[in-house]
Amino acid sequence: MHRASYEALVAERLEREALELAAKRRDPLSPYAEAPAPFARRRFMLGSLAALGVGALPAPRASAQALGAAVHDVPSDPTKTPGYPLADESYGTRSQFETAVRRRFKTSTPLSSWTMTPLEDGMGVVTPSGLHFERSHAGTAVIDPAQHRLYVHGMVDEPRKYTMNDLKRFPSLSRLMFLECSGNGLTEWAKPTMATVQFTHGLTSTSEWTGVPLSAILNEAGLRPGAKWLLAEGGDAAMMTRSIPLAKAMQDCFLAYGQNGEALRPEQGYPLRLMVPGYEGNINIKWLRRIEVSDAPFMTREETSKYTDLFPDGKAVQFSLAMEAKSVITSPSGAMTLDGPGFREITGLAWSGRGAIRRVDVSTDGGRTWRRAALQAPVLPICHTRFRFPWQWDGREAVLQSRCVDDTGYVQPTLGQLIAVRGLNGPLGSVYHLNAIQSWHVTTDGKVTNVHDY
Amino acid sequence: MHRASYEALVAERLEREALELAAKRRDPLSPYAEAPAPFARRRFMLGSLAALGVGALPAPRASAQALGAAVHDVPSDPTKTPGYPLADESYGTRSQFETAVRRRFKTSTPLSSWTMTPLEDGMGVVTPSGLHFERSHAGTAVIDPAQHRLYVHGMVDEPRKYTMNDLKRFPSLSRLMFLECSGNGLTEWAKPTMATVQFTHGLTSTSEWTGVPLSAILNEAGLRPGAKWLLAEGGDAAMMTRSIPLAKAMQDCFLAYGQNGEALRPEQGYPLRLMVPGYEGNINIKWLRRIEVSDAPFMTREETSKYTDLFPDGKAVQFSLAMEAKSVITSPSGAMTLDGPGFREITGLAWSGRGAIRRVDVSTDGGRTWRRAALQAPVLPICHTRFRFPWQWDGREAVLQSRCVDDTGYVQPTLGQLIAVRGLNGPLGSVYHLNAIQSWHVTTDGKVTNVHDY
Repeated sequence: MHRASYEALVAERLEREALELAAKRRDPLSPYAEAPAPFARRRFMLGSLAALGVGALPAPRASAQALGAAVHDVPSDPTKTPGYPLADESYGTRSQFETAVRRRFKTSTPLSSWTMTPLEDGMGVVTPSGLHFERSHAGTAVIDPAQHRLYVHGMVDEPRKYTMNDLKRFPSLSRLMFLECSGNGLTEWAKPTMATVQFTHGLTSTSEWTGVPLSAILNEAGLRPGAKWLLAEGGDAAMMTRSIPLAKAMQDCFLAYGQNGEALRPEQGYPLRLMVPGYEGNINIKWLRRIEVSDAPFMTREETSKYTDLFPDGKAVQFSLAMEAKSVITSPSGAMTLDGPGFREITGLAWSGRGAIRRVDVSTDGGRTWRRAALQAPVLPICHTRFRFPWQWDGREAVLQSRCVDDTGYVQPTLGQLIAVRGLNGPLGSVYHLNAIQSWHVTTDGKVTNVHDY
Repeated sequence: MHRASYEALVAERLEREALELAAKRRDPLSPYAEAPAPFARRRFMLGSLAALGVGALPAPRASAQALGAAVHDVPSDPTKTPGYPLADESYGTRSQFETAVRRRFKTSTPLSSWTMTPLEDGMGVVTPSGLHFERSHAGTAVIDPAQHRLYVHGMVDEPRKYTMNDLKRFPSLSRLMFLECSGNGLTEWAKPTMATVQFTHGLTSTSEWTGVPLSAILNEAGLRPGAKWLLAEGGDAAMMTRSIPLAKAMQDCFLAYGQNGEALRPEQGYPLRLMVPGYEGNINIKWLRRIEVSDAPFMTREETSKYTDLFPDGKAVQFSLAMEAKSVITSPSGAMTLDGPGFREITGLAWSGRGAIRRVDVSTDGGRTWRRAALQAPVLPICHTRFRFPWQWDGREAVLQSRCVDDTGYVQPTLGQLIAVRGLNGPLGSVYHLNAIQSWHVTTDGKVTNVHDY
């Protein structure tokens, strides 16, 4: 049964296989059970990348290099040609055949802008650090960690100044946690505008963050009686500032210097970021350089003229900080094409800024009927949760939706329910905190598009 | 209390701070409680990298570029200079100031060799994919995923051939899981030979892997009566082959195409790797191209002449597949220097191929007394678990050790206990499956070295 007999054996059996395949119906989860053709996702991806000028297989070299991959010759038989040698020192890159990228929402300047995670390419819950979404107001600051200082002052017994080495000597914690920009989906309130889940939902990502509890730092400075809020200030050219309730700061905030097992990435605030679990991304101040304790919020630009929620009666709600429960199907999703009926796994992500996801239901008929999806363990609070749902597509029109419930009992609303409360009064419709159920329409020829009104 | 008053306020208060710091003793976990000097770790790292020719701050540019970082000008005041713009398409890199690398154990050829994860730089449990250890027997194969096929044959009802797209249509799973080469620490049996934890323990890493359960594939092929083992064969030039008990294959093995939220990295077997949870790294066949089902093990080179354990009586044990419970303190660890007494957090990793870590104890006196360390949640089976232990170093000689217990009740042995059973008969002493307690000696001047005999 060894190598000598292998070629003959495979040849003989695979001849039979082609005939037997169609007759084979043993495993209802088999992709062959009803549809022999492979899933068309890869073909879509290459097509769309080619349209963007990234290039297409079988000549991926230039594009792969531009995307940071080491590029090697591809042997016709990799068992007959040695691979490339292991380097004495290395920091590895992905395969030259992989092309997923963050993509920028085309704001008027790339200095105040955002890029979005390709959720359709994601697997599991960890977002590769190189694909974590970005949102900056004055570009990505370049800071030498040896020069960086954190000041803590205001209503404290003793103001403090910390180097990065000082902070790394405190007791540490790690936490798998999502971040989400409160502007995620901002163009989608009134009508569907974006083709892909990257652009409808890609302002959220999950990393394992490591740092020091903010309570340890505040306890060392000593909080004065009457202290109720703090200001966090970034060290970038935007000097981003936001106010945080002191109770939240003492409960679970932390100062992160680590992300996915290494230093924080530059675009995530290297060398230091304030983490505010479950609160809108913007308040998780990057390049953190100053914390000022006070008895009232500071009413900064980013919590008065921006990052507020205008309601139908003309009043705006401030400090709507927690991100409510939300979910989205990432595959199949917008701009993919299914090339024939049969089995495919529906999968996606669910998350809540209030706690853990308790359940996710999936509908393939636009919300008329729902069935429970499986949640991938571990299901962690304030972390992306991967859900999976087995689907036999019968080839008819379908509308795919997911709906999550978090452990406070909150149920993700339909877009209609959300608009009934929030209205469409904001400058682009109601800009922030869109957490409605997403609908993907599947046509009889397998095309998947972003739709409303289901 | 806003920006205008900030400079004056900080200046005035920080003047007082210097005097008050020494008198301040409020928080027993404060790094200032007994020792004002910062931890010397960064200084050590730069020193050791300089010795290796990587270069040192403040001129990190060439080295950073060589290590794959985008390099930018460093402004004197990042609040006065815009950062760099967000790219339309990007796959981000780490900061130009970060220099952690995998390092190669200097085997005679870099084609059959291994590189080791810098565990001393790790945070949390996820290993950055670029720093995941490598072990290859014929270099890193370069495989076009569109051309790759997996054959399943032997004692099955119908042989099968799968493309990568076929496999991605099956139901999927994700799992945070460690891998460890059974040769991890192979030179350390008889005497301490390596200076750093990277070289004593760096052949283990954790990723979130995604793929398809092997049972789904085997069920589709149909197992014939009497089937008991399978052969997994790699598609690299080594054509690495190992035998796996069928019971294990059906229990929890899976075929991974994803790692940390993106495609498997090339050096981890792109595009497809067999995952055998808790078993020695070598059996997790990379570049997987063939699975052959049989009624007996195949007695391949890598489970007869290699990867066996020679005992004192001259007999060798084959198929010692599960990795037993093991732990190591990663900070402080070998070649670091503590620059003065005071608080520092002892932290490290524990893992078991048999299940979850139940507890970790830490000794600072060479094993005479033990105290329980805190385990970072979530504590997952067959996954690195981060432990933390607060330590006030009194400036005297110390020997730091960690000892873990897994949820089968297995207790990590001392080196003496392990040698009493295993002997030192292997070609380099007993090469494989060294899971003894590691000792780090701290001298009164703060130097940390790798020692035995404690």
